Amino acid sequence: MKDIYIADLIGFDEGKNFDSFFLVLGKQQRTTKQNKPYLNLTLGDKTGQIEGRVWDPGDPRIVKDFERGDIVKVRGCVSRFDDRCQIKVDQLRKALDGEADTMDMLPATTLDVGDLWKQLEAAVESIANPDLKRLLDALLSDAELTMAFREAPAARQLHHAWLGGLLEHVVSLLGLADRVAAHYPLLDRDLLVTGVILHDIGKVRELEWETGFDYTVEGILLGHIQMGVDLVEKTIAGLPGFPDRLRTLVLHMILSHHGKLEFGSPKLPMIPEALALNFIDDFDAKMQAMTSEFERSAREGKAPDELTGKVWALDQRQLLNTRAWLKTSGQ
Amino acid sequence: MKDIYIADLIGFDEGKNFDSFFLVLGKQQRTTKQNKPYLNLTLGDKTGQIEGRVWDPGDPRIVKDFERGDIVKVRGCVSRFDDRCQIKVDQLRKALDGEADTMDMLPATTLDVGDLWKQLEAAVESIANPDLKRLLDALLSDAELTMAFREAPAARQLHHAWLGGLLEHVVSLLGLADRVAAHYPLLDRDLLVTGVILHDIGKVRELEWETGFDYTVEGILLGHIQMGVDLVEKTIAGLPGFPDRLRTLVLHMILSHHGKLEFGSPKLPMIPEALALNFIDDFDAKMQAMTSEFERSAREGKAPDELTGKVWALDQRQLLNTRAWLKTSGQ
Amino acid sequence: MKDIYIADLIGFDEGKNFDSFFLVLGKQQRTTKQNKPYLNLTLGDKTGQIEGRVWDPGDPRIVKDFERGDIVKVRGCVSRFDDRCQIKVDQLRKALDGEADTMDMLPATTLDVGDLWKQLEAAVESIANPDLKRLLDALLSDAELTMAFREAPAARQLHHAWLGGLLEHVVSLLGLADRVAAHYPLLDRDLLVTGVILHDIGKVRELEWETGFDYTVEGILLGHIQMGVDLVEKTIAGLPGFPDRLRTLVLHMILSHHGKLEFGSPKLPMIPEALALNFIDDFDAKMQAMTSEFERSAREGKAPDELTGKVWALDQRQLLNTRAWLKTSGQ
Amino acid sequence: MKDIYIADLIGFDEGKNFDSFFLVLGKQQRTTKQNKPYLNLTLGDKTGQIEGRVWDPGDPRIVKDFERGDIVKVRGCVSRFDDRCQIKVDQLRKALDGEADTMDMLPATTLDVGDLWKQLEAAVESIANPDLKRLLDALLSDAELTMAFREAPAARQLHHAWLGGLLEHVVSLLGLADRVAAHYPLLDRDLLVTGVILHDIGKVRELEWETGFDYTVEGILLGHIQMGVDLVEKTIAGLPGFPDRLRTLVLHMILSHHGKLEFGSPKLPMIPEALALNFIDDFDAKMQAMTSEFERSAREGKAPDELTGKVWALDQRQLLNTRAWLKTSGQ
Amino acid sequence: MKDIYIADLIGFDEGKNFDSFFLVLGKQQRTTKQNKPYLNLTLGDKTGQIEGRVWDPGDPRIVKDFERGDIVKVRGCVSRFDDRCQIKVDQLRKALDGEADTMDMLPATTLDVGDLWKQLEAAVESIANPDLKRLLDALLSDAELTMAFREAPAARQLHHAWLGGLLEHVVSLLGLADRVAAHYPLLDRDLLVTGVILHDIGKVRELEWETGFDYTVEGILLGHIQMGVDLVEKTIAGLPGFPDRLRTLVLHMILSHHGKLEFGSPKLPMIPEALALNFIDDFDAKMQAMTSEFERSAREGKAPDELTGKVWALDQRQLLNTRAWLKTSGQ
Amino acid sequence: MKDIYIADLIGFDEGKNFDSFFLVLGKQQRTTKQNKPYLNLTLGDKTGQIEGRVWDPGDPRIVKDFERGDIVKVRGCVSRFDDRCQIKVDQLRKALDGEADTMDMLPATTLDVGDLWKQLEAAVESIANPDLKRLLDALLSDAELTMAFREAPAARQLHHAWLGGLLEHVVSLLGLADRVAAHYPLLDRDLLVTGVILHDIGKVRELEWETGFDYTVEGILLGHIQMGVDLVEKTIAGLPGFPDRLRTLVLHMILSHHGKLEFGSPKLPMIPEALALNFIDDFDAKMQAMTSEFERSAREGKAPDELTGKVWALDQRQLLNTRAWLKTSGQ
Repeated sequence: MKDIYIADLIGFDEGKNFDSFFLVLGKQQRTTKQNKPYLNLTLGDKTGQIEGRVWDPGDPRIVKDFERGDIVKVRGCVSRFDDRCQIKVDQLRKALDGEADTMDMLPATTLDVGDLWKQLEAAVESIANPDLKRLLDALLSDAELTMAFREAPAARQLHHAWLGGLLEHVVSLLGLADRVAAHYPLLDRDLLVTGVILHDIGKVRELEWETGFDYTVEGILLGHIQMGVDLVEKTIAGLPGFPDRLRTLVLHMILSHHGKLEFGSPKLPMIPEALALNFIDDFDAKMQAMTSEFERSAREGKAPDELTGKVWALDQRQLLNTRAWLKTSGQ
Repeated sequence: MKDIYIADLIGFDEGKNFDSFFLVLGKQQRTTKQNKPYLNLTLGDKTGQIEGRVWDPGDPRIVKDFERGDIVKVRGCVSRFDDRCQIKVDQLRKALDGEADTMDMLPATTLDVGDLWKQLEAAVESIANPDLKRLLDALLSDAELTMAFREAPAARQLHHAWLGGLLEHVVSLLGLADRVAAHYPLLDRDLLVTGVILHDIGKVRELEWETGFDYTVEGILLGHIQMGVDLVEKTIAGLPGFPDRLRTLVLHMILSHHGKLEFGSPKLPMIPEALALNFIDDFDAKMQAMTSEFERSAREGKAPDELTGKVWALDQRQLLNTRAWLKTSGQ
Repeated sequence: MKDIYIADLIGFDEGKNFDSFFLVLGKQQRTTKQNKPYLNLTLGDKTGQIEGRVWDPGDPRIVKDFERGDIVKVRGCVSRFDDRCQIKVDQLRKALDGEADTMDMLPATTLDVGDLWKQLEAAVESIANPDLKRLLDALLSDAELTMAFREAPAARQLHHAWLGGLLEHVVSLLGLADRVAAHYPLLDRDLLVTGVILHDIGKVRELEWETGFDYTVEGILLGHIQMGVDLVEKTIAGLPGFPDRLRTLVLHMILSHHGKLEFGSPKLPMIPEALALNFIDDFDAKMQAMTSEFERSAREGKAPDELTGKVWALDQRQLLNTRAWLKTSGQ
Repeated sequence: MKDIYIADLIGFDEGKNFDSFFLVLGKQQRTTKQNKPYLNLTLGDKTGQIEGRVWDPGDPRIVKDFERGDIVKVRGCVSRFDDRCQIKVDQLRKALDGEADTMDMLPATTLDVGDLWKQLEAAVESIANPDLKRLLDALLSDAELTMAFREAPAARQLHHAWLGGLLEHVVSLLGLADRVAAHYPLLDRDLLVTGVILHDIGKVRELEWETGFDYTVEGILLGHIQMGVDLVEKTIAGLPGFPDRLRTLVLHMILSHHGKLEFGSPKLPMIPEALALNFIDDFDAKMQAMTSEFERSAREGKAPDELTGKVWALDQRQLLNTRAWLKTSGQ
Repeated sequence: MKDIYIADLIGFDEGKNFDSFFLVLGKQQRTTKQNKPYLNLTLGDKTGQIEGRVWDPGDPRIVKDFERGDIVKVRGCVSRFDDRCQIKVDQLRKALDGEADTMDMLPATTLDVGDLWKQLEAAVESIANPDLKRLLDALLSDAELTMAFREAPAARQLHHAWLGGLLEHVVSLLGLADRVAAHYPLLDRDLLVTGVILHDIGKVRELEWETGFDYTVEGILLGHIQMGVDLVEKTIAGLPGFPDRLRTLVLHMILSHHGKLEFGSPKLPMIPEALALNFIDDFDAKMQAMTSEFERSAREGKAPDELTGKVWALDQRQLLNTRAWLKTSGQ
Repeated sequence: MKDIYIADLIGFDEGKNFDSFFLVLGKQQRTTKQNKPYLNLTLGDKTGQIEGRVWDPGDPRIVKDFERGDIVKVRGCVSRFDDRCQIKVDQLRKALDGEADTMDMLPATTLDVGDLWKQLEAAVESIANPDLKRLLDALLSDAELTMAFREAPAARQLHHAWLGGLLEHVVSLLGLADRVAAHYPLLDRDLLVTGVILHDIGKVRELEWETGFDYTVEGILLGHIQMGVDLVEKTIAGLPGFPDRLRTLVLHMILSHHGKLEFGSPKLPMIPEALALNFIDDFDAKMQAMTSEFERSAREGKAPDELTGKVWALDQRQLLNTRAWLKTSGQ
């Protein structure tokens, strides 16, 4: 079992030995200025990434046959350069089956995936419109798809960029959708809930998360909006008598959920539920990005009442944690 | 008492006489092609505006001494040109005191202002933070300000453009803020509620609504954001020991609530509550604009399953009323 | 048979009677300033549109039971107001079956649709890649679709806005694609030709052209890009063994052919053929818009060496017809 | 007294020892590749910044208890790496009271602050409008504010980013304002002069310059426009009978002086004096940025007839010094 | 001699006859609803434009052979429709030679053109740099060019859109340039003055002002920047030994004086004098637009303390006349 | 003769000695951390650039008197650091006359310049319009200009950034222009061909390519559009009777060929030939950028079915090589 994580290494003394398992995210041959060859590794686990250096690749305690995507057991110690931390690797071998858990190797939701899934199923169950319920039941009865839905991150790096992030984001939106639908009688709650569940469904194909988070080539060429629409179109094609107009509305919500052409939605929201989906999706992503940013600032040792650095996901704004700032001043 | 409204006139037969009271929004001398002088009036009441023509201004049954802003009693009949309806005015005199109610003369909220105000007071009452409560109590203890707050429209024409519109918008936001704060533990609910109540408070000075809705010159030169900030700054200056940081956060929410520099906010939202305020404010305005648009389409005789025209407040999009569209098709 | 067209009426003397057939594009009840009711009609044929006025709708020679979309026989004369021409209608009845040809009633390509279609078929025939050929054959074997493909306009009003306009545009692009593919060895000619044929195929569903050119509600909510992608996806689903990557490339060309996110393409061209398709599509549309504009200027009596008015489809530029300008000056 | 400045070190031979005083702008613990700890310092004085390295932090000649913001006495020598220069620190202690002058430690105006202040006072004296004069007198009678006004930089790094920069910029604008007001009779000279003096007054609170130039948290959340408006609002509140309209115009000039919403002004200039203020402010800032850039190019050893690098404050343009370019060519 | 101007007609009683001379800016045949032909004219003089109607074109007192561009003598009276004024024309003949002055027929500067020209000549005289002086002397020795320079408007409608407007604008800039150059030692005064005189010189070819203000076809295709550059290039080609670098700088000032690529300058200002030219040119144009707008508001009967309408030349802002607003309130 | 190129060095073993000739693109004195001086060189040849280090500049086998722009003979070996390759220089002297070919020292077209030039001459020969032919003949009879036209790159780094790149780009466009003109009868083929040959002619003055590719100062201040227009203007001035309108059209094509104001064209294309020139120019540049990018990816060892990195010349898109991607999958 893995008990030392990359996040822990920041606090380690230089030179103190440790053993742990990591996922190999990169591996390159290099040469020192004195012309000595060495290996430069990028190692990851669910708490982050770190550089590793094998200064003596010829050492018999360093195996030769590992690649990007392998889990390896490493013995070494921490060294620091400028403000960055790195691992000096003394021994390295591939992990044996069962020695390490893949789920430990990539960042993952801190919530219980089983619980999240039950909340999703409860939301489907709560839908009164029989056609929308049929559609969701059909989609979620595909085992491969639901497995992917439980695992997929919501993005490569912008927000919810961790295993289970897509599901976590959708479940948060389901709660928000219920609150918003209760507030505005104009909204058809069942349609909005359906839009929430399906809006990012294409991400299970747009992204791959086996060996780090990345886009598939198909994902880059087509995008998760089109991939999700196709999934829904083909599912509906298998549902006899599914109403044409309802199909159009569901597809319109997926197509328009980014809210602007320049964000990759080919259509703007033109029905109340699409407008609502666009707002809560954008809002939840930004609230999560704020939360992640405050956690990162804390991890990096910033005082709780300092502004964060400029945050890419929020237009390069700096952010301030209200409660921490008020508390610090005793106000 | 006024019992015939402009909205009713659309259905009137041409040539049929009626009497009613209207607010004079415009008055101009003109001449026919045959060189006969006539009066062109713009008349309004709470259901809309209509043109009126006095073809014989010299008639003794037409008084001379009325101006823009007066309420007048009119006898006349409806005539139609192209698709527009207009009043042929045969008699006109100024209304006597008590004959007509000013509140009937401008569009007004369909909700009960007393009820809305109680909801606002309940929200203030619910605030636990003693400083924020002090601030709101101080502001709402100003009789002139609260009177204006109950009457003010939320805009000249974009959304909630009717008497009581500002209050109606704020009360809708209070409900939404409570739901959103309950969903995100990161949010300080009291701060968000305070932001909701104060974000548009400057509109009571930016707008005037005595004789139609318009901006004051001061409102155009300074804007409601600055006017609201000034009101809050001066109120806080009268509250001994009000915490500096809390003051900064309240002001930041007002300054940033438009969410973008190009929408006139000099600062972007940098705290969670400001981000939330910007989203719910924008969302509520757009939901209300959608609702108004569907009502207008219905009033103009569009079928419920037709798209609306291009809507200015929603980037020239056309909108579709989901429920009506599904119902029409029997789907 | 119709032998007097709207374009001819410009030259008619005022007051001279004529008979002809028109499509009713609009019909409204109105009232004169003297309170007399009259009918205002919008009448069309393939050469344009014109207003018609029935000053005496009670006349027994004017039928009552016609609607938007009907073809009617009209007797009347031309009158002029400002610079606009209008028909004073004295008699009006619905056309009998066979009396008038629907194809005369809307603007249509001046080219032979049969010829155009043969060119399209020849292009399909010329494709060497068996999978792409299979795909096109499958699509073009659907009789309803091919019928629509022969009739559809390419747009409501921007370019090629006439019956057969879509086909005319595609055939022009086929010629251009062959020339461009011959110039750049990097281009896969079969893929480019396939992209040309399919890029706007969704327009057969996005637009309707029975009674004037308009968008369908489904077309406005989903758009021709998504509608075309769906048509191709479902056709490919019926072709066993169709290569996955080839499917992705064909779909990518359709998705990206507008070339910019803000033009409604959710993806930018990322392969050589998609880049080429975007350029030739945009270029052909603009060349056609220029040609139409020069024809219109000529029709409106401008001198051949004058600049046109500001052209919407070309960013409000004014245009100049090179040859005419040089010829006029004797240069 | 400090007689060796950072700007001088560029010309020093490597290895030659020297002593001087610097302000500590940064201090970090680091480790060499050989795992030896060392200190990395950022040292500054009024001529610039430089890195310093303490390779043996345990040496008793290196004190332990200094922090960011302290002035220290350093003995060491210059070393070079790539094109950058750095100090190898052999001895380091905190400066004693009176040993070093704080004003030597940050970049400062090269002009005489006393003279600049007299010019500002003369401008106030020259104002004929008694209310505007009252307002300025009241503001400048606040000792803390005037002290800050004499010291504040005009920006963190864009233009006039040095101690006294704000005052230098304002005094330059006063001269320009007088010239421009003399040219355009439409301009109210007193109002323009008042706008010049007050437009950036909020910067004394938005920025802090004790230990390097930075924004305060309050400054980032509210901005110098709002902070300046508040200062003026509260001063006016203490002036009985100050005319309402004059107050509105002064505030409008401050609010609109950035000239565009996207530059953080919530209002555009709508009166002649606000338009003029926006132009001369922008122009003076750019002229100063050009001058600074030419000086920097000279300092960095560029030939006088070379273009500068791309200048951030001028939209990434390269700049050319006209006179130097003409002189070099003998033209 | 013309003694009744269009601006005077606003105050005339309807039906009262008068005689005056006008320039024919437009002439169209039209027909009344009763099918009677009439003539619709657009008539202009230096104070504005007005519509004219000839209800009986067959009347022998109406000549037949006049065209756009002719000056005509008109007898008629004023009639009004809505808020617009129009001339009912009873008699019309072409003006005899010497009866009317062309300069009365188009809007023209209210300043003395001879005086303006002397100021321009004085500025040329004041230039110390012999090459720049040679260049200006050579250009201004071309009689046709200087004649055009004295007459040309500065724009078709944006600012200084009247005969002599270009010269008026340049002379205002000369005054401003002297003031600005005196303020900034970095500026080469002679170069800036040269830039001021030459920056819009191409407008003498871009515009035509014989029969109203319009662009030439060549002007639309090439633009005044290129036309001015060409004029200067060819003049310099005739000056032996003109320094290459000085030529580049003069051309750069002309090319960059609009200050932004999207305003049609192919280069941004990269030397101090080009930056200064861009600022003062833009500022003077906007100050003049403000002044014209206040005059127009006054002419249209607005109260002096009202905001103007939205002004196109100033990004649709409303403007306020500071002095008038303060004076009205007694403040 | 040079037989070892920079592109070859990637495959060399570290430490193996070699001799070759390089162009010196940069030379700087530096010091190691141990305070030893060394020389840092940037060396180039037609296959790329590489860093060189002279660790012992005092060695008598290293000459002292070489500068940027010299061709030198180097003896040394390859060393590697991170992923970058560098030359350790042991001996260095200036190349003797005739020892090395300048054309080997900068990247150059892989096509035969003589052949390209013949194609250009054939295009000129094919022009039927005698005036256009005269113009091109006159320009191409200038020996200095034609020499530069054969050598110039088309850009510093965006596309066709190699010796002969301008000519290669123009010849590709000539082929494309012929195909496009054959497709659209609206196009005047001779005018389009003339535009193709002249559109970038100013680049022979905007760029310099003696010692690496760079812009001239004059090029940065005026730009190749203006420089090309000037060249054409002056040539036409020497052609008696050249038609004015034809001159305007040729100049308009050069001025507008970037197609957008923000790309530095002061005019938008307003004639068919200018529109066509803009499209084929942009398209050819992007096709060439794609081709170069695929070659670079291959050189850098990417698999043929991988996406490229984000490509600056194509709006940061990633690109995919269609054929390689299909082939890899066996599809």
